This record gives sequence, C-alpha cells and structure tokens, in this order.
Amino acid sequence: MSGAQQGRLYGVGTGPGDPELLTLKAVRAIGEADVLAFFAKAGRAGNGRKIVEGLVKPGVVELPLYYPVTTEIDKDHDDYKRQITDFYDASAAAVAAHLAAGRTVAILSEGDPMFYGSYMHLHVRLADRFPTEVVPGITAMSGCWSLSGLPIVQGDDVLSVLPGTMVEDELSRRLEDTQAAVIMKVGRNLPKIRRALSAAGRLAEAIYVERGTMAESKSLRLSEKLDDAAPYFSLVLVPGWSGRP
Amino acid sequence: MSGAQQGRLYGVGTGPGDPELLTLKAVRAIGEADVLAFFAKAGRAGNGRKIVEGLVKPGVVELPLYYPVTTEIDKDHDDYKRQITDFYDASAAAVAAHLAAGRTVAILSEGDPMFYGSYMHLHVRLADRFPTEVVPGITAMSGCWSLSGLPIVQGDDVLSVLPGTMVEDELSRRLEDTQAAVIMKVGRNLPKIRRALSAAGRLAEAIYVERGTMAESKSLRLSEKLDDAAPYFSLVLVPGWSGRP
Repeated sequence: MSGAQQGRLYGVGTGPGDPELLTLKAVRAIGEADVLAFFAKAGRAGNGRKIVEGLVKPGVVELPLYYPVTTEIDKDHDDYKRQITDFYDASAAAVAAHLAAGRTVAILSEGDPMFYGSYMHLHVRLADRFPTEVVPGITAMSGCWSLSGLPIVQGDDVLSVLPGTMVEDELSRRLEDTQAAVIMKVGRNLPKIRRALSAAGRLAEAIYVERGTMAESKSLRLSEKLDDAAPYFSLVLVPGWSGRP
Repeated sequence: MSGAQQGRLYGVGTGPGDPELLTLKAVRAIGEADVLAFFAKAGRAGNGRKIVEGLVKPGVVELPLYYPVTTEIDKDHDDYKRQITDFYDASAAAVAAHLAAGRTVAILSEGDPMFYGSYMHLHVRLADRFPTEVVPGITAMSGCWSLSGLPIVQGDDVLSVLPGTMVEDELSRRLEDTQAAVIMKVGRNLPKIRRALSAAGRLAEAIYVERGTMAESKSLRLSEKLDDAAPYFSLVLVPGWSGRP
C-alpha cells in the first residue's frame, strides 16, 4: 500500500437543498478537494452541485457523472442493470484515476451519502483501495420534519422509512405496525399511498412535504393535498409521539 | 399578537458529537442567540453544550435546564411523569420569559431536534406562541454509519429504527421484517438485542458502534463485541442493500 501518494476520497453529504444545511466538515472537504465529482442527469446541473455553488473554488476540476438512463425504465430489466453497472464501474474508474494521481476527490451526495445515495455505488468500489471518509449530511426527511416543525419520534417510538413504490397491502400493513413513518418516493404513487394510509387509519395525521428546505417548499396535511401531481422527491410524514402533551 | 417585539426561538441540532458536524445554519443561530439553553444532568455540562463550546460568544446568557431525575426510575410511574412534566413546564416558562422580553433563544439539541430530542417537549409548549425555527442536525445513527463507512439503505429498502428497550420477541419479529435496521438505546439491552438478532438470522451482519463521531468512538462487528458493557447511547446497525455489488 503506497497510501502516502494517493489522494483522499470524501463522500460529502450536501443536505436536502438549503446551502446553509451543509456541515462545517462538508465545507472543509469541498475546500480541500482538487476534484469535485457529482451525479447528474444528462444536460442537467445536478442538485448536489447546485447546493454547493457558492463554495466551488477557482481551478477545481469538475467531474460530472451523467446517468446513462434518463427515462424511467424497468429497474429489473437486464439492459438497465447492465447500463447502470457499467456506468458505476466507469465512474469509479474515473475517480480512481484522480486518486491514484494523488488528487483529493470530493463526491457530492444529496442528503446523506449512505442513506439511499448514489455515492454508495462508488464507495463500495473505492473505499477498500483509497483512504476514504464519509461526511454525513442532513437527510431530506430531517429537512422536511424540521421545516414543518413536526416532532416525528420520541421515547420508545419505532420509525419506519418506507418506499412509496411498495405494493399497497404491504404499505398499509407496515403503517399499522409502526408509531411513526416516512414515505419516500411519492410522485405517481400518491393515490396508492393515500389509500394505504386510509386503510391503516393514519391518513388524518399524515403531512405531505414538497421540496423540503428548498426556496419553493411547501408542507400541508395530506388530506388537503390533491392527487394531481407530486414530485418524485416529495415525502409523506406520519408523526409518532402519541403521548405528547 | 405583537410578534415584532418577541424574540425568536431556534431549536438547534448540534449533531452527534464532532463540532465539525454542526451545520452552517446551526452556527449562525448560535451566533444570533442572546440566550443559549441546553439540557443537562444536574452537575454535568450537557453534551449539546460541550459540542458548541468553541462557538459561545462572550456575554451570552446561559440557561442550563437540569433534569430533575438523575437515576433511572420507571417511566410509567406517576411520580416520574409528574416530575418530568413539571420540569418541562418550568423550562418552557423560563425560555418564554426571555422570548417575551425580545431575546433570541437557541435551545441546543444533540443530534436532530425532532428525532427523539428533549427539545420537542419545549417545542410543543412554545412554537404556537413565538416565532420558531427548527435547525436540523446530523443524527447519531447517521454519524455512526458514516464513521463506519457502512452503506445502510439503497433503492427500495425499508429502514426500521427500533428502541433496544423493546421486548425480545417483538424486536426479533421486526428485524426479520425489514431490509435495514438501527437499534437505539443499547446499553444494558445488549444481550437481549444479540439474541433477537440471532433469532432473526441477522447477527452476522450487525455492526456495533460506540460514541459515534466522538474522539473515542469505536465500530466493530457485534459478533466480536462482548456483552460486558455498552453505553446507553451506543447503536447497533443492520445494513440493507442486499443487492450490492
């Protein structure tokens, strides 16, 4: 191991959107980086990159990693799996080349890197070969319940983080079996999520949050939100703490 | 409502221990505060207060809120409930007096204020009467999985946050029914948690983390950790992402 000549890899959580929700450590890691890598849809700026706009120093090398699949295709399809695996392999190789040349690389990750982040795909390909540090970030769910002023869990509450993609009966069963819940990936799943909450007797408590901590964010009771349109990254929060005063 | 003359209330997440894991917004809120309130055991400095030591400006009023119950007594006992309710009422009144006098108050909360934080007890007593903003913080669990370099959830994984105080069968049932889990409040519950993980077939994957992100932190496979002694605030992480490459 010739670690002394290698660059350092930072997986940097950029938080949910508000640049003020970056940690001091994230700011330092971005400042130390020779190379700033970030995921983005082809032709887009990348949300993580937008959040750190004010921190990017002159002369830093930018390494955008463009997802190969821009339309939603079936994740279980072999073509998708091959394309996305090739993409993560190639992205890891591009980052590894910089690290091997002694350059420090910060890979930006919206929210928290190890919590559903794309960064994880590069971490598992690189962390055993290069000195690596993960800088945690504020999760989208935490940004949302803070913005809403909504106490989410207290004492011995169970919190269940559930994907809105789950089948309706399963979602309903889990909502009945938890004190608090966060439902991710709302988008087109909103009508199903509403039915599952209703079946579980939890609809009245549910709060819908759109673009938490971004300038155009909004937070309202799900019962007052229409089934018209919801961004993929909106969330539904079901608070626990039933014994609150 | 004469909001213009009232002070502003900040519920400030201080993160899991490392002062560098404060957000920029938390640093600003602490800098703006005329009064810095924090929970502590009688005679102790308070963990949240320790984390922000380097940020406390001269002349700020410090308002320590000392828990009345220092030994663990049964939470369901009426004496406990009355003492703790009186304490939160009196603490809220002390903070309200400062806010009513036009002083900005920051209440420190370890980790994330709305995620099992004592701050929540003051929030529900004050937020409808004073202009209030909750500044999210890095949770202990996020600090722990980042420190361990442990990808916790990906894709459509379910994450269950479970208190280690739960009865063994219930804990085991929930561990069987989730992709990823975080078990909080480990301490004296460690032998029971180990048995529940074993019954659920998840012991081999489990990681034990002690004092995540503090200087003396450690992270190891639970199977290599003895049942001797575990701090109350240690955690057990069971990673999801079964399809990882």
